[in-house]
Order: sequence, then structure tokens, then C-alpha cells
Amino acid sequence: MKKIGIADTTFARYDMGKSAIEELQNRGTGFKIIRYTVPGIKDLPVACAKLFAEHECDIVIALGMPGSKMIDKTCAHEASLGLIQVQLMFRKHVIEVFVHEDEAKDEKELAWLMDRRAREHALNAYNLIFKPEELVKNAGKGLRQGFKDGGPIK
Amino acid sequence: MKKIGIADTTFARYDMGKSAIEELQNRGTGFKIIRYTVPGIKDLPVACAKLFAEHECDIVIALGMPGSKMIDKTCAHEASLGLIQVQLMFRKHVIEVFVHEDEAKDEKELAWLMDRRAREHALNAYNLIFKPEELVKNAGKGLRQGFKDGGPIK
Amino acid sequence: MKKIGIADTTFARYDMGKSAIEELQNRGTGFKIIRYTVPGIKDLPVACAKLFAEHECDIVIALGMPGSKMIDKTCAHEASLGLIQVQLMFRKHVIEVFVHEDEAKDEKELAWLMDRRAREHALNAYNLIFKPEELVKNAGKGLRQGFKDGGPIK
Amino acid sequence: MKKIGIADTTFARYDMGKSAIEELQNRGTGFKIIRYTVPGIKDLPVACAKLFAEHECDIVIALGMPGSKMIDKTCAHEASLGLIQVQLMFRKHVIEVFVHEDEAKDEKELAWLMDRRAREHALNAYNLIFKPEELVKNAGKGLRQGFKDGGPIK
Amino acid sequence: MKKIGIADTTFARYDMGKSAIEELQNRGTGFKIIRYTVPGIKDLPVACAKLFAEHECDIVIALGMPGSKMIDKTCAHEASLGLIQVQLMFRKHVIEVFVHEDEAKDEKELAWLMDRRAREHALNAYNLIFKPEELVKNAGKGLRQGFKDGGPIK
Repeated sequence: MKKIGIADTTFARYDMGKSAIEELQNRGTGFKIIRYTVPGIKDLPVACAKLFAEHECDIVIALGMPGSKMIDKTCAHEASLGLIQVQLMFRKHVIEVFVHEDEAKDEKELAWLMDRRAREHALNAYNLIFKPEELVKNAGKGLRQGFKDGGPIK
Repeated sequence: MKKIGIADTTFARYDMGKSAIEELQNRGTGFKIIRYTVPGIKDLPVACAKLFAEHECDIVIALGMPGSKMIDKTCAHEASLGLIQVQLMFRKHVIEVFVHEDEAKDEKELAWLMDRRAREHALNAYNLIFKPEELVKNAGKGLRQGFKDGGPIK
Repeated sequence: MKKIGIADTTFARYDMGKSAIEELQNRGTGFKIIRYTVPGIKDLPVACAKLFAEHECDIVIALGMPGSKMIDKTCAHEASLGLIQVQLMFRKHVIEVFVHEDEAKDEKELAWLMDRRAREHALNAYNLIFKPEELVKNAGKGLRQGFKDGGPIK
Repeated sequence: MKKIGIADTTFARYDMGKSAIEELQNRGTGFKIIRYTVPGIKDLPVACAKLFAEHECDIVIALGMPGSKMIDKTCAHEASLGLIQVQLMFRKHVIEVFVHEDEAKDEKELAWLMDRRAREHALNAYNLIFKPEELVKNAGKGLRQGFKDGGPIK
Repeated sequence: MKKIGIADTTFARYDMGKSAIEELQNRGTGFKIIRYTVPGIKDLPVACAKLFAEHECDIVIALGMPGSKMIDKTCAHEASLGLIQVQLMFRKHVIEVFVHEDEAKDEKELAWLMDRRAREHALNAYNLIFKPEELVKNAGKGLRQGFKDGGPIK
């Protein structure tokens, strides 16, 4: 039985963890979900480490919403570096799902984007552990999560 | 008996460590506090390592006040990266409580902010080791420490 | 029998992995190719780690297309740092082949550049494991991959 | 017998190492000083590692003078990250004493600042290994090294 | 018999490795030189790791010429961080000799600078392993490699 970790934050303004969990449950069975919530995105790297080491997760989806200020961009950068590091420590994927507060034009779009990106990346996580060949099939296809795909260059 | 480390600096212009300790003591019992003070925020990562390894802390609250100059922002960035690294080394949380000197409009507000953020994050630290389910309950709720909460998107 | 890993993404808008594989196969024999596709460039470091540790690759070619926005530049920087780290962990080369979406003047040139850089770096990877003396011979020659060589200073 | 390492550079335009050594010797006895000089600040992290591992230092004071150009700021940032890393590797303090060439209004002030900051940080290093309680006493007091203290917020 | 590694690139537009080797050979005997050439500066960190681990070098001189574009500056930063990391892994010096393409006013000066900086840093490397006391003697003397020395503050 595979284990999928969900690491999310109390800082985010939308429950992205819930979206990811719902999407995973719609996808199939054969896995168990373990959720771990931390205050902010900089707490996510160690949360992932705990999900891998203490809860034996096979993959983690790390969800967060960096704010729109300069300092928030720096925090997101630091968190991302930590997420890469934790992946190398455990040699397992962490699918980072960050939605920057200023990516959307208003709150309604922001909520939509957070939900959608969480769901599309949940599918990526699912495929990475269950159907990696699906990703190979889409190599170079310009896929995006949230807004519409870039698409392959004609 | 759990151990909570308090790592703070002589550079900060307000005794954030004291605020955090008071708040923890108001919260409950069942833990011991160990305090370690260093010159500046870049000394905090190794201070946390010492609190984890030599004092067997279960969690550390790292408090600092980066200055308002460009170089201070860089120092804060370096310190934050080190704090993420030390968490991954020990697989334990370090709750970073940084208040940038230019976040507040005057000294009075700065002192208020330093006190308040230290206290609110002390509660986060407390919950992470004693009541992690409190954090899960607040996932995606737009919580902030110091100024008022962003709140969830309606 | 040497093993060459190909790590690429579904985010890229051109199938750079295919270009690299074709070029390698034109070069010679005596090696096996293992391909691993991930969502985006920040997933490449752990993909390389898996190619080294689980598939015993001798070298990996990591291909990606960072977008043109500021955030994409940050992602590329994070990915590059991770790729350097994974090389040090396994003491094996990862040839990073990144083409920034805004390096080319239009989509046609972008596709050409992605194909060409992938092929020229595939040759570098081939030489690094089979003919390292070819690289020594070209030290200081101002070689470039994709656009034309800078050339040695006269 | 404690050992204090002094790591400095030939790039700096003032002998900060000498200032630190003098100050330490004025402070007291019971320690041995080991000095190691490298070309520039980016060579300091490994110099510290050597002082810890090969010379068994208990603490290192790392002194340098980053230049005033953009590239020098980047070098200082890289060096600082390395110094944080080496501290985590050995779980010992490195007191970074950097004076940026453009912090002072003229050469005279620059020399004064380099001497003074070196001396004030030498005291921090001394206290960290001999009198850590002195630092706790000064937590949140707004101390600075070189120019005048920020002081605590009233 | 000491071993000195030379790590350089095919990207550079002048054969800095050759300059460094010539200078070392003019300096003295009692060492062996091992050269390893890679495509670009981001390949240098793992090249150094190989020179240390597989060729048992005592020190490495890593030579490169970052281009003048913004992306080249980022690459140089990433490479430098990797070079610091590899030094900490092996606890041996890597003398980084980078000449940015835009440091010189024309190609002639650029070639001169690349040759000269390579030679002056080759001497630093030589001294670090054979005569470290030469560096201590020059602490705080404002030495530069390439353009003229900054000199000590009077």
C-alpha cells in the first residue's frame, strides 16, 4: 500500500490540501493519505522530511500560497530550495504546489487557481508513483497546472 | 518531558525571547525551556543545532530582527536558509520568528509587533509538539502572526 | 555497458529528450538510455538522483525549458542549484540543458534552439564518459551549445 | 585549553586578524590562537573547516572585507552561506566579521571600522565559549559591532 | 608527491588552464598536475569532486569565464556555491579563478586578464599547499589577482 503525504499551511487562504486529497480519492485506490499542516511555507521542507521518515510516505504534495510582497517571494524561494534538498535526502518526489497570491486578478480567481493547480498536481503525483509512463508520453507537451497549457510548439 | 529551545540575538531591539517564554508558560506545563542567545541572526542556525544536539530540544523558536538595509535583507535570507537546513539535519521544527525593522511604521508599533509575533508563533510551536491537530484544523485559513489574519477567501 | 539517463519535463514545449536520444544513438553504441519524465524543472534534481541510484546511470542529461516570467527564472536557479548538489552527491555529471523561453525571437527559432542545444550537449555528455580528451582539446575555445560559438580570443 | 581560530584574507585592506588577536589577548588567558590566511572571503568556509577539523578549534572568527562592486556583494553572500554550512557541519560557531568596503565614508573610517568590528566580535567569540550568560543578559538590547549600538526600543 | 588539479571549461574564450599550468611549472617541482575539462562553469563543482576523489588531488584550481549576460551571472553564482560546497565535502581548497567577460574593456585586455589572474591564483594555490606562511604574511594587504592590488589602507 503506497502512502501519499499532504503537507500544507495555515497561512494559505484556501484549503488546497483538501482539493488535493479529493482529487487523489477520485483517481483511484491503493494508497493511504497522511496530512501534516504547518504554519507557513518555510515549515514545509521539514514537514516533508517527517512525512517521509516518520510516516513512510512514497511521495509528498507540498501546498502553499506565498503572499504578494517581496519578502514573500524570498520565503517561497527559500522554501523551494528546502523542498529540493529534502527530495535529494530521501530520493523521493515532493510535488510543490505554490500559488502566489498575486498570480490571480481577484479573490475569486485565486480560489479557483489554488483549487485547480492542487488538483492537477495531485494527478502528477499520482502518475509519478503509479503510472510514470503517462509523464513520458507527455514530455515536451507544454503542460501547465492551473491556467491553460502552453502546448507544444508547432 | 518535552524541551523547547529559545534561540535569540543581542542585535534585536526588543526581547522577543522573553515574550515567547512568557507565552509558552501561559500555555501550559509539561515542558522545559532552554535559552541560547547569539550575536545576530546568522548565528541562529548553529544555535539551533546546539539546542537540538546538546540540549535535546524537541523544537526551537528562533527569534530575530533583521535591520532595514539591503545587507540586512541578505543576512535574513542566509539565516533562513540555514534554519531550513538545520531542520532537515535534525528532522525537527524551528519556528522562525523574524520581524524586519521596517515592517512597522514607528518604534512603538515595532515593539508591539515583535512581542505579538513572538507570542503567536510560540503558540504555533506549542501546538506543533502538543496539539498538531489544531494546525490541521486551521489549514488554508489565512492565519498570520503579528498583524491581522489574511483570512480564508470567501 | 554504460548507462545514460535522460531527465526531461512535461512543461517544456518541445521534446528535447527525443533530440538528445536521437543524437546519442547517431554517435555510437555501447550504452543504454534510460528516460525519466517529470512535471517541471524543479523535479529534475530528484529525477537525476533516481537515475543514478535506482537505474545506475553513469551520466544524466537534464533537459528543461524555463518560462519567461521572473518566477520562472527563480525556478531555473533553484533547479540548477539542485542539479549541482545531486552531482556532488553521486560524483557524476549531470549535463544541464536549459533553454529559456525568451532566448529565441519566435516559436520557430525556439524549437530550433531546443533541438540544437539538446543535441550539442548530448555530444558533450557522450564525450565526458567516452572521450574526455576531446574536451581537454577544446579547453578555452569559446564553445557554445545552440547559438554559434563565441570562439577563442585572437 | 580552548582553541580559537582566526581565518582571514590577503584581499582585505586592513589586518583585521591582528585586531581580533590583540583583543582576545587583552580579554584573558586559557586559550590558544591558530591563524589561517586565505586569498579571499570565498576561501574562508574551507579555512574554517580546516581550523575545526585539523586544528581542533572550538570557535573561529572569520574576517573579511568584501569590495564595493555588485560582484563583491555576491561573493560575500556566497561566503556567508558557506560559513553557515560549516558551522552546521561542525556544530561550532564561526563569528563572521565582514566589513563592506563601501560601509565607510573614507579610508580612515574604513580602517577604524575594520579594527573596531573585529575587536567587538572577538569579544562575542570569547563570550560564546567562556561566558555565554553574558549574551543572554544582552538579548534584545540592539547591540551592534563597529558603529554605535541600535539600542533597545524604549 | 602533491597533486594539483586543473579544472577548466570549453566555454571560456582563452586557455586559462594552460596559463595556470605554466605558472605552476615555473614555480617549482614536487607536484603532479591533473587536468580535467568540462563544458561550462556549472560543471566545475563535480569536476573538482572527481579530481579530489578519483585523482587524489590536494588542491584544485577551477578556471572559468562567465559571460556578460544576466543569466551568466546567475550561472557563476551557482557554480561558486557548488565550489564552496565541494571544498567543505573534501576539506580541501578549490581556488576559483573566474574572469567575467565584461570585466575587460576589449578582447585584448580580456585575454591579458584571464592569463594574469590564472597565473596569480596559481601562485596562491601553490602557496596554500607548500608555503601557507606566505599568505599569513600578506594578511590584510589588499592583494588582487589580475588588475592591480588594492593595497593596505595607510
